[in-house]
This record gives sequence, structure tokens and C-alpha cells, in this order.
Amino acid sequence: MDGTGGPPLHDAVIVIDAGRISKIGREQDVHAGRGARVVDVRGKYIIPGLMDANVHLDFGITPESLFGYAGHYDELVLEAAQVELKNGVTTVFDTWGPREPLMKVRDAINAGRLTGSRIFLGGNIIGMGGPASADFYPVIRSVINKVDADRIDAMWEQGVGPALLWMTPREVGEKVRTYIQSGRIDFVKYLSSGHKDMQFIAFSLDAQKAIVEEAHRAGLTVQAHSTSPESLRLEIEAGVDLLQHCDISGLEPIPDETMRTILDRGLPCAALLMTDRYLAWAADHGPAGLRPLIKVKDLNDRKLIGAGANLLLASDGGLFGPREKAESSPLVGLRLAGAPDIPNQLGDAHILWIKAAIERGMTPMNALLSGTRNVARGYGRATDLGTLEVGKRADLVVLDADPFADPNNYRGIVDVYKDGIRVDRSALPTARIMSPQ
Amino acid sequence: MDGTGGPPLHDAVIVIDAGRISKIGREQDVHAGRGARVVDVRGKYIIPGLMDANVHLDFGITPESLFGYAGHYDELVLEAAQVELKNGVTTVFDTWGPREPLMKVRDAINAGRLTGSRIFLGGNIIGMGGPASADFYPVIRSVINKVDADRIDAMWEQGVGPALLWMTPREVGEKVRTYIQSGRIDFVKYLSSGHKDMQFIAFSLDAQKAIVEEAHRAGLTVQAHSTSPESLRLEIEAGVDLLQHCDISGLEPIPDETMRTILDRGLPCAALLMTDRYLAWAADHGPAGLRPLIKVKDLNDRKLIGAGANLLLASDGGLFGPREKAESSPLVGLRLAGAPDIPNQLGDAHILWIKAAIERGMTPMNALLSGTRNVARGYGRATDLGTLEVGKRADLVVLDADPFADPNNYRGIVDVYKDGIRVDRSALPTARIMSPQ
Amino acid sequence: MDGTGGPPLHDAVIVIDAGRISKIGREQDVHAGRGARVVDVRGKYIIPGLMDANVHLDFGITPESLFGYAGHYDELVLEAAQVELKNGVTTVFDTWGPREPLMKVRDAINAGRLTGSRIFLGGNIIGMGGPASADFYPVIRSVINKVDADRIDAMWEQGVGPALLWMTPREVGEKVRTYIQSGRIDFVKYLSSGHKDMQFIAFSLDAQKAIVEEAHRAGLTVQAHSTSPESLRLEIEAGVDLLQHCDISGLEPIPDETMRTILDRGLPCAALLMTDRYLAWAADHGPAGLRPLIKVKDLNDRKLIGAGANLLLASDGGLFGPREKAESSPLVGLRLAGAPDIPNQLGDAHILWIKAAIERGMTPMNALLSGTRNVARGYGRATDLGTLEVGKRADLVVLDADPFADPNNYRGIVDVYKDGIRVDRSALPTARIMSPQ
Amino acid sequence: MDGTGGPPLHDAVIVIDAGRISKIGREQDVHAGRGARVVDVRGKYIIPGLMDANVHLDFGITPESLFGYAGHYDELVLEAAQVELKNGVTTVFDTWGPREPLMKVRDAINAGRLTGSRIFLGGNIIGMGGPASADFYPVIRSVINKVDADRIDAMWEQGVGPALLWMTPREVGEKVRTYIQSGRIDFVKYLSSGHKDMQFIAFSLDAQKAIVEEAHRAGLTVQAHSTSPESLRLEIEAGVDLLQHCDISGLEPIPDETMRTILDRGLPCAALLMTDRYLAWAADHGPAGLRPLIKVKDLNDRKLIGAGANLLLASDGGLFGPREKAESSPLVGLRLAGAPDIPNQLGDAHILWIKAAIERGMTPMNALLSGTRNVARGYGRATDLGTLEVGKRADLVVLDADPFADPNNYRGIVDVYKDGIRVDRSALPTARIMSPQ
Repeated sequence: MDGTGGPPLHDAVIVIDAGRISKIGREQDVHAGRGARVVDVRGKYIIPGLMDANVHLDFGITPESLFGYAGHYDELVLEAAQVELKNGVTTVFDTWGPREPLMKVRDAINAGRLTGSRIFLGGNIIGMGGPASADFYPVIRSVINKVDADRIDAMWEQGVGPALLWMTPREVGEKVRTYIQSGRIDFVKYLSSGHKDMQFIAFSLDAQKAIVEEAHRAGLTVQAHSTSPESLRLEIEAGVDLLQHCDISGLEPIPDETMRTILDRGLPCAALLMTDRYLAWAADHGPAGLRPLIKVKDLNDRKLIGAGANLLLASDGGLFGPREKAESSPLVGLRLAGAPDIPNQLGDAHILWIKAAIERGMTPMNALLSGTRNVARGYGRATDLGTLEVGKRADLVVLDADPFADPNNYRGIVDVYKDGIRVDRSALPTARIMSPQ
Repeated sequence: MDGTGGPPLHDAVIVIDAGRISKIGREQDVHAGRGARVVDVRGKYIIPGLMDANVHLDFGITPESLFGYAGHYDELVLEAAQVELKNGVTTVFDTWGPREPLMKVRDAINAGRLTGSRIFLGGNIIGMGGPASADFYPVIRSVINKVDADRIDAMWEQGVGPALLWMTPREVGEKVRTYIQSGRIDFVKYLSSGHKDMQFIAFSLDAQKAIVEEAHRAGLTVQAHSTSPESLRLEIEAGVDLLQHCDISGLEPIPDETMRTILDRGLPCAALLMTDRYLAWAADHGPAGLRPLIKVKDLNDRKLIGAGANLLLASDGGLFGPREKAESSPLVGLRLAGAPDIPNQLGDAHILWIKAAIERGMTPMNALLSGTRNVARGYGRATDLGTLEVGKRADLVVLDADPFADPNNYRGIVDVYKDGIRVDRSALPTARIMSPQ
Repeated sequence: MDGTGGPPLHDAVIVIDAGRISKIGREQDVHAGRGARVVDVRGKYIIPGLMDANVHLDFGITPESLFGYAGHYDELVLEAAQVELKNGVTTVFDTWGPREPLMKVRDAINAGRLTGSRIFLGGNIIGMGGPASADFYPVIRSVINKVDADRIDAMWEQGVGPALLWMTPREVGEKVRTYIQSGRIDFVKYLSSGHKDMQFIAFSLDAQKAIVEEAHRAGLTVQAHSTSPESLRLEIEAGVDLLQHCDISGLEPIPDETMRTILDRGLPCAALLMTDRYLAWAADHGPAGLRPLIKVKDLNDRKLIGAGANLLLASDGGLFGPREKAESSPLVGLRLAGAPDIPNQLGDAHILWIKAAIERGMTPMNALLSGTRNVARGYGRATDLGTLEVGKRADLVVLDADPFADPNNYRGIVDVYKDGIRVDRSALPTARIMSPQ
Repeated sequence: MDGTGGPPLHDAVIVIDAGRISKIGREQDVHAGRGARVVDVRGKYIIPGLMDANVHLDFGITPESLFGYAGHYDELVLEAAQVELKNGVTTVFDTWGPREPLMKVRDAINAGRLTGSRIFLGGNIIGMGGPASADFYPVIRSVINKVDADRIDAMWEQGVGPALLWMTPREVGEKVRTYIQSGRIDFVKYLSSGHKDMQFIAFSLDAQKAIVEEAHRAGLTVQAHSTSPESLRLEIEAGVDLLQHCDISGLEPIPDETMRTILDRGLPCAALLMTDRYLAWAADHGPAGLRPLIKVKDLNDRKLIGAGANLLLASDGGLFGPREKAESSPLVGLRLAGAPDIPNQLGDAHILWIKAAIERGMTPMNALLSGTRNVARGYGRATDLGTLEVGKRADLVVLDADPFADPNNYRGIVDVYKDGIRVDRSALPTARIMSPQ
């Protein structure tokens, strides 16, 4: 399955040269050059390396992580990137996290000094606060000192935190420009609606336009975090390239007109799909406040899929250790203790997403495209990534059984190749902090 | 002082007929008709009845009021309206409160069945929740039952509460239309930014325009509650007629461009002025979180006054009983225990406002206009109210000493007339719930 | 069934004179005097009026009650007393509540001015705070003013509140003496362990002895509230006459030695029994923190019943209106929303208690004695109450079906007599505040 | 000043042999043996090494410490012990902390492998919970996971935590015995009253006696933490050897009878003295809840000192880093931000204590005895420590100026000797975690 949407090629041969695909086709048509090392995977299934449009490689935003791994956040990032790679996700888009350690690991992986999933990162979400801010767990400030709390928040906020919500569109634009110039990010993400108070609008349309303009001026794609019908509409009007969790619209479903725009324009729509099992469990056991939101979300997902929207696999996933998964971890988010099919545990999250997509009516083929080609296109990376085509980076996963027959077959990984090089999966992760020993 | 801005008339005569001023001028020019009852106030000072552009006649949003006066909210409203009238404020604009009891008292006063300050009311602030909602004191819900909490919130919200923030502009417009049709309000007020999270935008520009359109279609003036530079800019762009607490812009001062628009258009700007004494006290003793906001506010006020903005006297005042004023009342807002010159205690609030205005550079004459003519014009009531001119309602206050010499002289009331009728001030308030016995 | 423990009398006749039983026996042996009014209840079942050893006739300790019924607490008390009487509970022991309204209603009922269950009251629990104190809902103080909060707490505490925990045994004794002298209470109850922090001891043994001594000096029985093994042991050593919820011993069961003392001395032990249905529900849905406590409690109950302890029917009951029963009433205690057989709703609580007792192995006969004779004896009121014997007050309930066959038959009330007078049950309660209209 | 209470010796000579004082006396009377190394401190002042009866060498009970220094708590302990030694406090009694790292450092110092103040430790306070328990900061559990919270609490509780409050005296005794046997502690401390709810009694008199008995059986001194008049009385009756913060009696002063017992028996009374400057500051700026407690405490202190009670210098001190000292550190205890003379910062705390003692009427001589001889006696260590007498360990401090002339002279340290060896003060602390770099 080459990820182009065409029918699977049987008896296919892929020739890789210098990390890229130089030829691909039927056995009878394609010949590797002389001296080529041949890997025979007859009887297996080859797909493009999978891509996740929304991860948080360092999701350690509770005090035990913030302090327990201080100075070692890069190790958390690396471990998560390795767990992803090991499980066939060769490219991830980190949409919120501490920028410095993320950049450090990204650069080391890109330079070949470390092994891991290819990382594209946005750093902070423009307008959003750090772990101890009002956007996340301000209660942290009742048990730790202000100096540390401020320092931690600054590590996440990087000068484009909540203070921007007080500014004029012009000033917001300037802050975003400075941010882009201060360290190499791969895309821009901003807050269209509030993180805690989901129905409130974070940036006015003019401010959103200023952010989009700055991102585009720097040649970066731009996306927004939205959680309400109006904030979704505004970000589309502002001209974002990608809608992050477009399916979360709070207590009211996506209005028809906005839905039509999304479909007509084929806007890339990163959605947080959850399996029936998880949803059934959450309906019974999840926090009462979450239930109506999840119900509306599922309604949106079914409509989007039914209408053939350009969905992107997006797990919002992180790597959580056994303690974080323990029964009464207070800041669980989607990781409801005891829940089956928890949708945001990296390593497994992408498979659950595909399952959920199929349950909601997507074809297995389209589910694969959502986790490969669509993500690459959505992020403007289709020149290099997303399909098995000549000229693309040779990221591919060899599966033991047909993934279109059963999404669980995505688990039966024979081999993962990234940039044409076989990954030594048994060695990953190289250090186990969050992973079971 | 006739409130027109011209120099005081000496030896003036005002002739009142059927509740309105039929003649006004110098003694030698104006003659009451035969049979007129003559009131000789030689040596005294006459000003138009004062007007407060922002009061909350029922500010009892704590459990002791909500339950202790259940079924009697109209009595609270009446008492507050009587305290205002007694102190020379003949017209008040109630910008948030329980609509039913407010309408009941307004109508009874207008029909002459009850005595009190003339009331114009907005009912709920479109988009805002009731006392037990997230916008005010959600902690109330941890000590009272849900049925009562919901019932109370509904009494305030009247179908145009926080649920509107999830809706499209069109739906918001429809809800506002229904609200306007469901009971006679005198003006519309909506939330431009959040009440708790002041930097967030409540309604998008399109939704704000929809609200403004509905208000204007019904022939009502419309104002917005804003607390940030962007929400202030949006509401002006949406076309509001009046800016409610335009001087509160959160952590950043009003941007120059917006300031220029306010001045150029002479937009009515209801400001919450506080005296130097109060501000000095609050800087030392007020909650740390309030201090930076108050500092920015004062900066705005000085700029607005210096530039001759069209300020309106607005106290945000309520009537608080001795218990509410007690040391540790937890939900104090501006009523900081122990503070001098508390700016929002009805009865006294308007005088402190005038003092504060003069301290900030306003002339005594303009301070009077802010509390009379400007309010009338801002609310579109200048045909009837705001000045002592022929054809206007005969609302006037007779003072013992020159109010321009010292704002404390506003306290020296000889007599108050409303609609040409002398108020029996000694009988007010007719029942003392909040007032000291 | 005469409540003496002997076999039921068949074809019995009860002669009542001046409110007391003058004769009782077989039809052939007993003859009413000439002129007696004969009530023929052939085929029915007569039991002594039931007694509840632990009620709170005014359990309105949330803001909606405290303020909504301010000045009318006596009406709440009366309604609860009438609901009890209507349902066959002719005598109740109120072990915590606002003393003044309780005394007012008790005295009016005793004087025949009002109809209701006979009330004996303790007023405050010595050492315990009022509704807004740390012992109950201190969060109330975050939404109401301090003046009201203090006033309300004082209404409950009556000078013998938490301040006594700082005092020496002698001083505690003096406070108790003053309390007893300041208004007529019928018995003394004190705190042996903490109300919130159940494992902590409230009064030292010496202080407990001082309280017991003062109560006995005043001719009153004395009981203690205990919630831990040590506090239970201490109160027994201090010489209390009655153990209030002896079955609640926190996280550890009643130690063997203490159990033996209770049994050997036949100490009256007021227990809060709950039915299997309720316990099963609470195990699944109740707050996690309550579950281990309830488990230990049930273990204690089974041991006590198995060993023939002198248990007293005690519901800890109050009258809760529909709002208080609503889904999310935050301060529910045992009234878990959605639970079956809620054990502390007055009117029904005593029947559920009897059911629960039988489920735990008590004979139907002993269950009746627990709700009649044992209570009377435990409170030192056996001269007048608790059995159908000559000289006792003629409190009796006529049932349609055999209560020993099925505890639900306690619901089939034909008639209730108190002091020999037939109660007009259809007229009760005379006013419905909490009761459904 | 030899710490015996006698007048200072002038021209004194101290001969040290094998770490102990072999001779002491006037120059003319005492001669060091041949070959002795002579240190000439003519003109200086020599006092016994100071002793603090109540420290917490690891006071890092907030998340930043608990996680940030996980695995390194011994380094925190060592640093604190070194800061103390550097400042002349040669012996400290650690009355609450994580037992394992404390034992590790104590043993390493005793064995000469590490340099630091001599440590005696109690481990946990019997009956008290760890940092995340209800006794300290249960709010920590709202931001960290349960596994870590439980693990941390267990590290402090060591099997003798709050669960003991549910047990019978016999069971409590058994737990204490197991605790004593499970690791070498130097003394036993238990909770006589609650840590949060100070007026509640933690252990009944019988349970306290059981603890005392177990401690004495193991040859250990035993002390109790009390915070109320009754808990103080109980622990004395139970037979404790030392009263820890005897001066804290909550809202009521120490009753006369208890005061008399303390004085008559000369019970060692570790008191938390605070200077006038600190108290004046706290009265104005400290939390309202603390003020009445501090007032009563000061009253007790003055009475105790006036009556010549056997007071022990006890700082309750810890080592706090710059972040912990920052303005808004939420869990400040006595470290009120901005306060002068903060009484519990190790390194300085003992000098402030002496100042405060003198301010309250103690003679400079007795203040020195409180920080030397009295502590040694109170802890049963007078054979080895506390005075400069023949046979005692040679712990001594050489001062530049007369400490009896001005307590600030305790800061003018020339040299510190411990076990006869000169401390290289310039090298301490050997690593700076909490200390400024």
C-alpha cells in the first residue's frame, strides 16, 4: 500500500537510494541496480511510515515530572520519539511542549546522532500558558514556590504565552515574529479558543490574521487549537492551514456552514478519534463534565467521516509511565483510570485511532491515508513524506498481515525503515524512564 | 446649574407644569402663571437630578441574600432606588440584575404607585451567567443544591446566559430577539470579554454585530461590558452606543488607536472612578491580583479626562447592609473592608465619583455634566432627562451650598424633585432591609 | 405486641385513662369501665408507639435552609415531628440542632398546643461547632459574611462549642453546668471523638468525666458521639449512659475487650443500621472515602446483633425536601443521590432500620424492642414510655398486618394514639415545607 | 563559659585527649602534657558546642524538593548538618524527617566519614503522617499521582503513621516496638495532639503510656508534640522525658496546675522562642489565624522564663534555599516572606532564639545553658555533652567577643571544635544545594 490511495501493488519492489525511494513498481518492471542489497519480504505488507499530526513528546506537566526529570526533559522526549518509531510511526508533529529539549532531540535525530521518530515541532501554542498557568494546573502554585513555577511556565511559554491576549493584533504579530526568529520551529500553532474556558475566544480575528501572516511570512504552516463553533469559524477565516482537533466544538456541533467550508476546501482536519469501547466506558465512568463534550465530538466525527473530510490522524498522545497511569492520578485528562483503549498513550494511540475511524465509517484505505499522506500534505511536507513514491524519503513499515483486513494487524510489525535504514527496534527505547522496565 | 454646560443662571426661576419644565430663566424674564405654587429657594443651588449610568439595585448575589430575601427581591430593588432618590440621584440605569423584580419596581415607580429613583434596566448581560455560575461564585454550588442553584441562575440569565457563547452569530441574534420580546427592557448590554477571565473575548465580532443589530431593530441602545483592549476595540467596531467601564482594559492600557476613536467619536464612556484615598488604600491593602488592574485603570482615566472624553458617571453600585460590609465578607469586590471612600455603595457613590473625577483633572462643571446630561445622551434619553431645559422632566436637586466649590456640597440636599414633585426624603427608604435602622 | 418481649397477646384489650394505660390484658380478663368509649380494632395489631433514639428535626444546615427559613426553624422542627408522628414514631430524641426552636416546639407539643411526636432534646453536642464551623461545612464561610456565619454557629453551639476543647476538665464542667442551667434540655450529648477527623479524641477522659458528672448532677442521662475504638472506650470509662452510634468505629472494628464491656453491661447502643440494598449501592456508588468505614460498621453491627447487644433504633434522620434530595446536592452525607433505602429520611427511616436489623440476624421481636422499650430504658424514660403496660403513657400504633411477618407491615398504619388520643394523621403535617405538596 | 552555670573561668586552659576533655581549669592549675599541640586563643571566649533540641535537617516537604532531590535526601541532610556545625551548633536533635537518609548521614558523621553536626534522630513522630498526608499538605495529592504520594508518605511514616490513631493502646505499643527495632533511632517522639487540628487529642492517655513504656524499655528518651492544654497535661501524666514546644498551647495559656507541674519537676521544655522584631512583624503581617496562637505562646514563654523553667533551645529549623524563601512560597509556616528574624532558618536560628530568650527576661547565662547543658540533660546525653567538663566530648566554640555582652557575639566565631578536632569551617557546606552559591 503506497499511500497514494491507489490499489495495493502486488509483487512490488521498492528501490532505495541515499535514503530515498528511487524506484517503485511491480517486480517485473522495477530492477534494483547491481550491488543493491536485497531484502526479501515476500508475503508481507508494506505501508508508508505512519505519521501522527498531534503528539506531546514531553507530556510531563505534573510536579513529579517537572521536578523529578528537571534537566532531563530531552530524555523524556527521546524516549517517546523512540517508542513511536518502534511502533511504526516514523514522523510525529509535536504541537505543544518545552521548546528547548524538543529542538535538541529533533536536531540530534535529524543529524543521525540519535535514533527516533522524525520530529516536527511547534513549541508553545501562541497565547497559551505553561503547566502551572491558569490554562493547566494552577493548583500547582499552591504547593510549589513562585520562582520555580514561573521558571517552568517560561520554559513552555517562550515569550508567546497568555500575556499576548492583552495585546493588539500588531503587537501579537511582533511577538510571534520574535518567537519564530528565536529558535527554529517547524510550524506555528495558536490558541483560537480558551484551553480551560473552551467557549471563550482567545484571539480576535484580526489578531489571528496577524499570527497567520507572520507564520506564512516565515514559510511555516499554521494551525489553531479550537474548541467552539465560533473559534473554529474564526481560524478558518484567518487562513490557517490546518485545523487542530476540528472535531471538538464544545457543547454545540460544528455548524452546517462551517462544516461545508471544511469539506469544500478540503481543510486538513486533525481529529481525536476514540474507539467505541473507550466511549462506552467514558459515558459510564468519565467525569460528568466531559460527557456532553464527547457526545458532540463523536457526532462531529461521524459527520466529517461520512462526508469524506480530509481527516488527519492525531492522538494528542504522550508517554505515560506506570505511576502516571496509576488509579488516582489526579490530572488524567483522557487517561481515565481503568478505561480500555485509552486514546492518547503513545505507541498504541495510532492503531486505536485507525480502529475508531473504521468504526465511524471510514474505509481502511482512507484510514491509512489519514495517518500518512494526509498528514504530510496538511503540514506541507508531501514533497518528502507520506507516500511510497519516487523521490520520497524511504520511511516504510513492513507488516506481517494485511492491515486493511484488521487494524490490529498494524501491530504485527516485521520491520520499520526510516530514511531507508532499518530500525533496530529491539534496542528501543534506549533508556526506559516512562516505559515499563 | 442647568446641566447644559453654560454658566450658572443667577436669580433663576423654573416653572414646572405637569411634571415638566415649562419655563426657565432669570427672575425678570420668567413668570409662573397665575395660581402657581411658589417655592422660594433663594440663596440655594439647583442642579438637574443626578443620573448613574451603572447600578445594580439588587446586588444580593450571596446565599444570605439569595435565600434570605427569596420572594422579596423587589423590596431590595425598591430600597436601593429610594436611597438613590433620597440622595439626589433621580434616574438610575440598572445594568445587571434579576429582570422580573426590577421590572416590577420600575413599572410601579413609573406608574406612581411607589416612590423611587427612575429606573431603566437591561436585565441580564447577554452571555453572562447568574450568581452561582462560573462568572460569579461557582463555589456557591458546593454548599447549595443544584435545583436551587439552577433556578437562581435562570432568574438572572433569562435565556441569554453563557450558553450563547457556543452559538453562531445568527443563533445569538435570535436569542437576543426573543429576550427583548419576552419582557420590556430599556436597553441591551452584552459581554464583550469574559467576566472572570478578562482577557478572553466572549462574542466574536460577527456575534456582537448580531446583538447590536437586534437591539437597534428594537429601538434600544446597546452597550458592552469590556475588560481588555481587544474586546473594547471589537465592541466599538460592532457599533455599540455606550462603552460600559471603558476604562477597565486589564493589564494593558487602552491602545492609542482605540483611544483616538473614543475621543473622535465622542463615544459615551461609563467609567468607574475611584478617589485617591481609596486607591492609596487599595494599593496597600487590596488583593494583590487587583493592584495592576487598578493601576492601568487609573492611567486610562487620567488620559480620558485629560483628553476631554465623554465620560459618564457610573458607580457599579449596590446597596449593602451592615452584614455585607462586615470585616470578612468573602465576596467583597471593591468593597474592601476598612477601605475609605468605597466607590460602589449607593447613596454616596455618585459624590465619590465626582470627587475622583475632579482629582483626575475634570472641571467641576464637566463632572456635573458627566452625572447628568452625558448619561441622558449616552442612553438616548436626552429628550426627557439630563438638563434643566424647557420640555424636560422636572427632576432637580436643591442644594444648600455651591457644588462647584466643593463636591461635598452635593451632600447638602435641601430638596429633591422628581417629575416636578417634591420628594418626601424623610420617609425614604420606606422599609429598611439593607439600610441601617 | 406490648413491647415487653413477651409473646403477643391475642384478643387483647387496652384501657386508657387520662392518657395512660390503666388496664391491659386478654379480653376475658380486662373490662373497661362504664361509659368508656370502645374502639374495636379486632384483627389488627397493636404495638407501642415507636421511638427513634437519634433524630435531627431541623437538619437544614445548608445556606438555603439557614437563610431561606431564618426565623422559621421552629416550623421545620414541627413538620419533622409531625411526619414522625404520622408514621407511628410517637417519641423522638433530637441529639443535635438549634436549641431554641427545638425547645419551643417541644414545649408546645407537650402542652398540647401543637401536635407532633414527643420530643426529647439535647441541643448542641458539647464540644461541637455549628453548621459553618470546621465540624461541618466551613466552606459556607467562603460565600457568606462572617457576622451571619458566627450568628448561625452560635445558635447551634449555645456556649458549649469547639472552644471547650481548649479548656481544662474543670472549665469544661463549668461550661456544661451553665449550659444545662440556661435552658431545659432533656439529656446531654458530647463529642468523644472528632466529627471531621474521626480518629482524633475530642475530650480527654478527665474532661469526659467532668461532663458526665455535670449531667448526672442535673439528673440527666448522658451520651457521647464516638467514631473510633479509643473514643468509644473512653466514653464508656467516663460513665456515659448511652453510646451514640456505637457501631461506627472508623477504620478498625470495635476491639474485643470493648465489645465485651458493651455486652456485659448491656450498654444501650444506638446504631445506624442500613439495609443490604443501600449498602450494596453505596459500595458501588458512594464516595470512595466512605466505603471502608461502612464496611467496618457493618461488621460491628453483625457482631453486636449476633451477641445480643442492647441496640437502639437510631436513624440520624432528618426531613429533606425535594431540592435537598436533588441529584447533585453537595452535602449529602448518607443521602447519596439515586440510592435506594436512604437510611436517614424521617418518616421511613425507622422501618428501614428494622429491615436492616432483621437482615443482620435480629429477631423481629427484638427489632421491635430496639425501637420501643430499649430506647425508653436507654434514655431513662421507661417509667412512662416504651411498652404497653399499666401506668405507661398510652402511645400506641394500630397496624393492619403482622409486623413480625414482614417489616413492611409497619407501613400499614390504621391509627396512631399518643397519650391516649387518636392522631388525625390526615391533617399532618399541618404545613408542608419539606414534604411534597 | 563552661556551661555548668558557674561564673566564667578567666585565663582558662582546656586539655583535650582522644576527643574528650581531660583537664580544664585556670592556666596556673592546668597543664597539658608534653607534646601537646597548643592553641592559643588568649582574649577569646570559649563556650560548649551549641545544641538545638528541635531541627528538621530535611525540611524539603514540597514537591520541588520531594521530586527534585529524590534519591539525594541525604545530601540535603548533610548540608544542613554542616551549616549547623559551621555556625557553632555541634549537636542537633532531628525530631521529624525521612528516617533512612537521616540515619545514613548520622552514621557517616559519627564514623568520621563525613563532617557535620552530631545528629540524634527520632525519625517519624509516632502517629503523624508524611508530607502528602492530611497532617501536612494533602493538596499535594491533587497534583501528583497516588503511587508517588503514598511512597513518599511511607518514607516518612515508617509504619508508625496516622493509622495508629485507630488502634488500641496495646496495638500502638506493638507498632512502636517494631519501629524501634527496625532501625536505630536515638529517641522517640509522638503526637499528643493533632498537627492540623491542634485542639484534638491524638492518643489517649493509655496509648501514650504504652508508647512511653516501649521507648523506656528500649532505653530511649521519649517526648511528645503537644499543642493544647489537655494534650500537654496528658503527655506529662504519661511520663514523657521532654516536652516538645511546651509553650504552644493553642488558644488558651498553659493552665496554672500544669505550669506548676512543669516547674516543680523541672521538666525539659523545648520552646520555640521568637524575637520581638519577628513577633511585631507577624502581628501586622502574619496570617490572621496564627496571631492569637502566637500571642498565647508568648504569654506562656514569659511565664516559663519568669518562673525559671528548664527551657531548651529549639528552633524547629530547616535549611531553606532561595526559592523556598521567595515571596510567594505557599507553604511558609513561620517563614513569612519579608519577615525579619525568621526563627527557623538553620545557621542563624539558635542566635535568634538566645536573643528572644533574653528579651523575655532570661539571663545571658541561662540562655547559654538552654542551648547546651539543658539540651544534653533533657535528651539524657549529659554524660558526653553539654558542658566543658572533664570526661565530656570536646565540642567547643571559640568566640571573638563576649556572648554575654551581646547575643550577636555568638556570630563572631573564631573556631569550632567537635570531638576535639578543629572544624575547617571554610569548607562547609561541602556542597551547596540550599545554601547560596
